[in-house]
Amino acid sequence: MSAIDRGHVSSLSSHCTKTAVPIITLLTDFGTSDSYVAQMKGVLLTACSTCQLIDITHQIPPQDILSGSRILAEAALRFPPGTIHIAVVDPGVGTDRPIIAVALAGHQFVLPDNGLLSHLLSQHPLDCAVQVTNVPLAQPSISCTFHGRDIIAPAAAHLALGGKLSDLGPATQRLHRCQLPTPERLSDGIGWHCPIIAVDHYGNLALGSCQELLSQIRQSLRVEVETACSVRQPAIVVDTYGQQAAGQLIMLVDSQCRLELAQVNGSALKLLKVKSGDFMKIWPVLGICP
Amino acid sequence: MSAIDRGHVSSLSSHCTKTAVPIITLLTDFGTSDSYVAQMKGVLLTACSTCQLIDITHQIPPQDILSGSRILAEAALRFPPGTIHIAVVDPGVGTDRPIIAVALAGHQFVLPDNGLLSHLLSQHPLDCAVQVTNVPLAQPSISCTFHGRDIIAPAAAHLALGGKLSDLGPATQRLHRCQLPTPERLSDGIGWHCPIIAVDHYGNLALGSCQELLSQIRQSLRVEVETACSVRQPAIVVDTYGQQAAGQLIMLVDSQCRLELAQVNGSALKLLKVKSGDFMKIWPVLGICP
Amino acid sequence: MSAIDRGHVSSLSSHCTKTAVPIITLLTDFGTSDSYVAQMKGVLLTACSTCQLIDITHQIPPQDILSGSRILAEAALRFPPGTIHIAVVDPGVGTDRPIIAVALAGHQFVLPDNGLLSHLLSQHPLDCAVQVTNVPLAQPSISCTFHGRDIIAPAAAHLALGGKLSDLGPATQRLHRCQLPTPERLSDGIGWHCPIIAVDHYGNLALGSCQELLSQIRQSLRVEVETACSVRQPAIVVDTYGQQAAGQLIMLVDSQCRLELAQVNGSALKLLKVKSGDFMKIWPVLGICP
Repeated sequence: MSAIDRGHVSSLSSHCTKTAVPIITLLTDFGTSDSYVAQMKGVLLTACSTCQLIDITHQIPPQDILSGSRILAEAALRFPPGTIHIAVVDPGVGTDRPIIAVALAGHQFVLPDNGLLSHLLSQHPLDCAVQVTNVPLAQPSISCTFHGRDIIAPAAAHLALGGKLSDLGPATQRLHRCQLPTPERLSDGIGWHCPIIAVDHYGNLALGSCQELLSQIRQSLRVEVETACSVRQPAIVVDTYGQQAAGQLIMLVDSQCRLELAQVNGSALKLLKVKSGDFMKIWPVLGICP
Repeated sequence: MSAIDRGHVSSLSSHCTKTAVPIITLLTDFGTSDSYVAQMKGVLLTACSTCQLIDITHQIPPQDILSGSRILAEAALRFPPGTIHIAVVDPGVGTDRPIIAVALAGHQFVLPDNGLLSHLLSQHPLDCAVQVTNVPLAQPSISCTFHGRDIIAPAAAHLALGGKLSDLGPATQRLHRCQLPTPERLSDGIGWHCPIIAVDHYGNLALGSCQELLSQIRQSLRVEVETACSVRQPAIVVDTYGQQAAGQLIMLVDSQCRLELAQVNGSALKLLKVKSGDFMKIWPVLGICP
Repeated sequence: MSAIDRGHVSSLSSHCTKTAVPIITLLTDFGTSDSYVAQMKGVLLTACSTCQLIDITHQIPPQDILSGSRILAEAALRFPPGTIHIAVVDPGVGTDRPIIAVALAGHQFVLPDNGLLSHLLSQHPLDCAVQVTNVPLAQPSISCTFHGRDIIAPAAAHLALGGKLSDLGPATQRLHRCQLPTPERLSDGIGWHCPIIAVDHYGNLALGSCQELLSQIRQSLRVEVETACSVRQPAIVVDTYGQQAAGQLIMLVDSQCRLELAQVNGSALKLLKVKSGDFMKIWPVLGICP
């Protein structure tokens, strides 16, 4: 949007880059109907009443580590350096899966070591990681089924109070990483076999992308798409939704620099009868952009 | 409730009327399952880590500008003067629809100029409006599909840091306003053709009202109502839900001073098989209130 | 989890036990789609702009006082002493049911006197309670249908500003308490008739428990369970979910020290076709724990 200029007024924020109060974000698969999230917040505020608590989301599908990892990577580094991020999607709670505290890109993370950091680790070097075995502020009694409240929140509060990562336990190196789905060439040499990595609130489909595919789409006026439950059909390549009429199937590069398939003012999810985790076929129709 | 008195204790809040920290509210149609809201909050806190972020709602139905406008008007002015309100229901994102920053009733608003201020503008004079074209804190790269994060949040942060509205761009006057649905007389001269302007979480129906209709209802002991999918039936006019037994259809003046049709401990929505945006017929049955 | 030690680093939080800013939690059955919650927050921040607002949940099923009471008891005392808790599940709004302000276990509560404190009162002695009749900060006009905004929030703000409980009205003693469902022995002298008191986001069933039943379960390797819509079947007694394979029905003592019936990585709710409020039969199969 070329109409927006930056920097014409001397920045008012230069004195503001250090967080005045500790910021702690929370991402879980707890939902918002139960008391789980509030119990964690109570523990955090009891240890550090000045911290600012921000929900990333609590709607990660139950036990869906890969979705949790993706959403965490989309949001975490938008917060100021020094932010502490808690993530709890933890089907292995109470077993021998470790809890880790990690420094990465100027941020700190406390979470189970089960792949929840996969997307961030694929994009940023790890600065430091410890296995959490020593929590100064741990709850007096640690349950087997709610380490988010009894270990992770107290460990995050320790960091929020200025405590060191290394206080929490011994250094660890080999973190658990999930394999991230990527697009692959079809045997026809033209199309792509593309994973649907997310469906958002609007029914827009985020697709696993690679530089070559993104580059092809940027040079295309349209694509053809096919799913298991819908026939091959065209989608127009656009910059944004409002460039086509309501109902039109469109493809664009989204605000995360990923491919997105959408229906203008509608739901590509319903139109194409797919779900997150499915694969679809995409054929770019190369052409000269106007 | 006459049992509640005010002011018997000297107010403790007089020193508190200026907001100690900037307050920014957020209203969107983003839902809470994705990372969109958190990305905006990250941008806001990166620019101004001391601001207090309050969600109005993120459950506006996708692209439903009129609902967004209504909810914003219900909530915004309950916050202290000086509050900054962000609203993003933005089907035209990335097209040439402007983004505006507005001062009204002692509050500031940053939002697309697509009608989201319609209800507030129908109730309060506009103090000042600018088209946002110059954002000191804008994101380094502005996406075509997420101006909430890349333009609106940085513009709001500028205001939160004490920056001036006029820094953000040139003054503008003619803001986009949606036509608000209102009740109309039926040809029988007695009844009303009334829009259902909202259905709340309980299934209560908020009806488009006017002074004449409200006045008639206040003088009525009951009304008769009819919808496209339900026969003409009586509803008792009450002050509050608990005055009738569970299951009874009632009409009252709600906490927004609008007509409301409700079923005690039930759902008028399900009972009458209607939805927001439908119209219904209402016949006040005038009588002497006890 | 024996791998977690406490206290190896001198506590950094000792200076932090008094809340630096007032904390106010909110629990309602308002949902998050409407403006009701935001209107209350606006009133709170207008009276006391420095307070920190924390949502416990707004997803209490409409008018379900017992669920509200349970969730409030699960979460409230996790917050630091001095926290003020607002709870609004209020089918009797505007009738003669009183609003009360209560001190209990170092916390303060403002809520309708309709049973919302039942679980907390069953666990903790009441320190002090007043009937709220005098609200210094009450809204200029008090609606009949939204006392949460017009009376309860202003009363909580009074407390947040350091005002006394006794300012709000005369002392009261006899608070409304709901009967809490408990398990009972079956006539066979072995099994139990157990209420399902909650179903969480994962479909895990929380069961009404008593010390004798909990003790029996702790000495059992497995139990047999039967519901109105499912035949008698075994469940393995475990400490945590990950000890059994996906799909296995398990029983454990949950993070609230209650019995929980769960399906590993699945939903006991769907498996057993029950709902909150139903009863089920449980037969512990006593054995020597390994």
